[in-house]
Amino acid sequence: MAKEPTRAQQLLGDFAPKLVELTDEVLFGDVWQRPGLSPRDRSLVTVAALVALHRPEQLESHLRLALNNGLSQEELVEAITHLAFYAGWPSGMGALTRFRAIVENDAN
Amino acid sequence: MAKEPTRAQQLLGDFAPKLVELTDEVLFGDVWQRPGLSPRDRSLVTVAALVALHRPEQLESHLRLALNNGLSQEELVEAITHLAFYAGWPSGMGALTRFRAIVENDAN
Amino acid sequence: MAKEPTRAQQLLGDFAPKLVELTDEVLFGDVWQRPGLSPRDRSLVTVAALVALHRPEQLESHLRLALNNGLSQEELVEAITHLAFYAGWPSGMGALTRFRAIVENDAN
Amino acid sequence: MAKEPTRAQQLLGDFAPKLVELTDEVLFGDVWQRPGLSPRDRSLVTVAALVALHRPEQLESHLRLALNNGLSQEELVEAITHLAFYAGWPSGMGALTRFRAIVENDAN
Amino acid sequence: MAKEPTRAQQLLGDFAPKLVELTDEVLFGDVWQRPGLSPRDRSLVTVAALVALHRPEQLESHLRLALNNGLSQEELVEAITHLAFYAGWPSGMGALTRFRAIVENDAN
Amino acid sequence: MAKEPTRAQQLLGDFAPKLVELTDEVLFGDVWQRPGLSPRDRSLVTVAALVALHRPEQLESHLRLALNNGLSQEELVEAITHLAFYAGWPSGMGALTRFRAIVENDAN
Repeated sequence: MAKEPTRAQQLLGDFAPKLVELTDEVLFGDVWQRPGLSPRDRSLVTVAALVALHRPEQLESHLRLALNNGLSQEELVEAITHLAFYAGWPSGMGALTRFRAIVENDAN
Repeated sequence: MAKEPTRAQQLLGDFAPKLVELTDEVLFGDVWQRPGLSPRDRSLVTVAALVALHRPEQLESHLRLALNNGLSQEELVEAITHLAFYAGWPSGMGALTRFRAIVENDAN
Repeated sequence: MAKEPTRAQQLLGDFAPKLVELTDEVLFGDVWQRPGLSPRDRSLVTVAALVALHRPEQLESHLRLALNNGLSQEELVEAITHLAFYAGWPSGMGALTRFRAIVENDAN
Repeated sequence: MAKEPTRAQQLLGDFAPKLVELTDEVLFGDVWQRPGLSPRDRSLVTVAALVALHRPEQLESHLRLALNNGLSQEELVEAITHLAFYAGWPSGMGALTRFRAIVENDAN
Repeated sequence: MAKEPTRAQQLLGDFAPKLVELTDEVLFGDVWQRPGLSPRDRSLVTVAALVALHRPEQLESHLRLALNNGLSQEELVEAITHLAFYAGWPSGMGALTRFRAIVENDAN
Repeated sequence: MAKEPTRAQQLLGDFAPKLVELTDEVLFGDVWQRPGLSPRDRSLVTVAALVALHRPEQLESHLRLALNNGLSQEELVEAITHLAFYAGWPSGMGALTRFRAIVENDAN
């Protein structure tokens, strides 16, 4: 039975096979699976980095993953509010505006 | 009895009293105290932002605070290893080199 | 009589009430009101930071605020031209392209 | 016979004449023409900087210029895969997703 | 009579003559001299960009230049306090700590 | 016969074994060895990213590696001069000042 394509395969298919392989086998297949940090904590760390670096596109998919990995909406709002001080107001406001759109969109 | 000066007071004393006040009363006195996210999780988020933004000076004091707030050395190493992918290798290597120096220094 | 909602309230309403409160009471209600720097100079500093950090969304609303706070279109164009050297050409070109669109849009 | 307007003239016309002049006469008219580094290598360096700084808008036009300056699609994919490690996964994934769209769009 | 070497000449002498030329003739010899924005405002904009980009080395020389160009110590402290919100606390704290060291050093 | 420890092993030894493994086996052992881009071009791309991201510590070791991988001092100076426009003057000036120190130090 064929496996469903990963997100990296969908995005970059045969266009960039090495980055797809590194993403699927090293980043998600190895690093994210390591027991030294829970998926919930890895999501918290990843969201924090994406807010700090102001990477809105990747932030959206990682906010959804964070909810799946056990972080509540309230914890994520609180984390981004906290991050506004460390990463600057524009990153905090932008991230929360985007998160709100995701939550409202998914509720419909 | 006089309170010990805060870190912000030590660094910026009368030179920048408004930023000292905002740091002590708003950032540490209000935001960090909010119950919606534990001090341990706030430290994880803060360390992630400082690694991602490559702010080595503030990273050092926040790594120490993270250990005080209940994150283990192993969790922090794992988090920074994870962050090397999201924030780039130079940020990850630089942060772990600095963390190692802190740990070895404090052991002596 | 009910006050009109602030921009932060419009964007984040009940979704992130603490960041709305910090934005309205601390950032705009306290820091921006301080007499040590004029609103015109605060706008100049804010626009410079948003150009340097490449935050196009917040830049748009702060360019409008800058015009309201007394900076002329010519001064802002000159400031962003100057910033192209310090923040890099892509940030300068991107900011001026956006500013031109705002000016032309508002003229219609 | 009138010369065709440059890209900077098209984008910023009379709105920001000094930045147009600096772009056309200093950046493209002088620096890019210098013999110490080939146009192909200058494109490689420029693309790397735009990936690292996460400037998607300018990246698009510089990826096209890079193809014109003699870099192959395969070399650019390989360079961006390499850069994922140094600039972080989000910058690498974002850049390759954009590059794929350009290539597929131009093929049609 | 020989002119004193510029700061760019001192730093990069014959090592990088083109960047020295661009710095002295284009950036300082042309852009900084333009009448559309005062030296005081150019310094304010430059300091803001250097705080936002976290470039401590260049910040030091531009803080001194800002004082020479007519900004008061109090205005610069107020501007950096303001910038802590837009560029993040670590950039604000780091910049003010450095500025304090400059001021105290120059007083001795 | 024991192999000499890699640079990652020297820096992070047993402190962060997973990042050492990823650096030595994936980044240097796999990605850098791929035939799709020459070591010389990989060095050019890496130096450009480190200049753009302003990572002075890693820049120093990668400038030395770039010289070993066949880039001349003149090409690197020209590349960084070019990058001053894209990454901003402070990154360009800082990188060339550092490169000059390396070259002069190694000549003695």
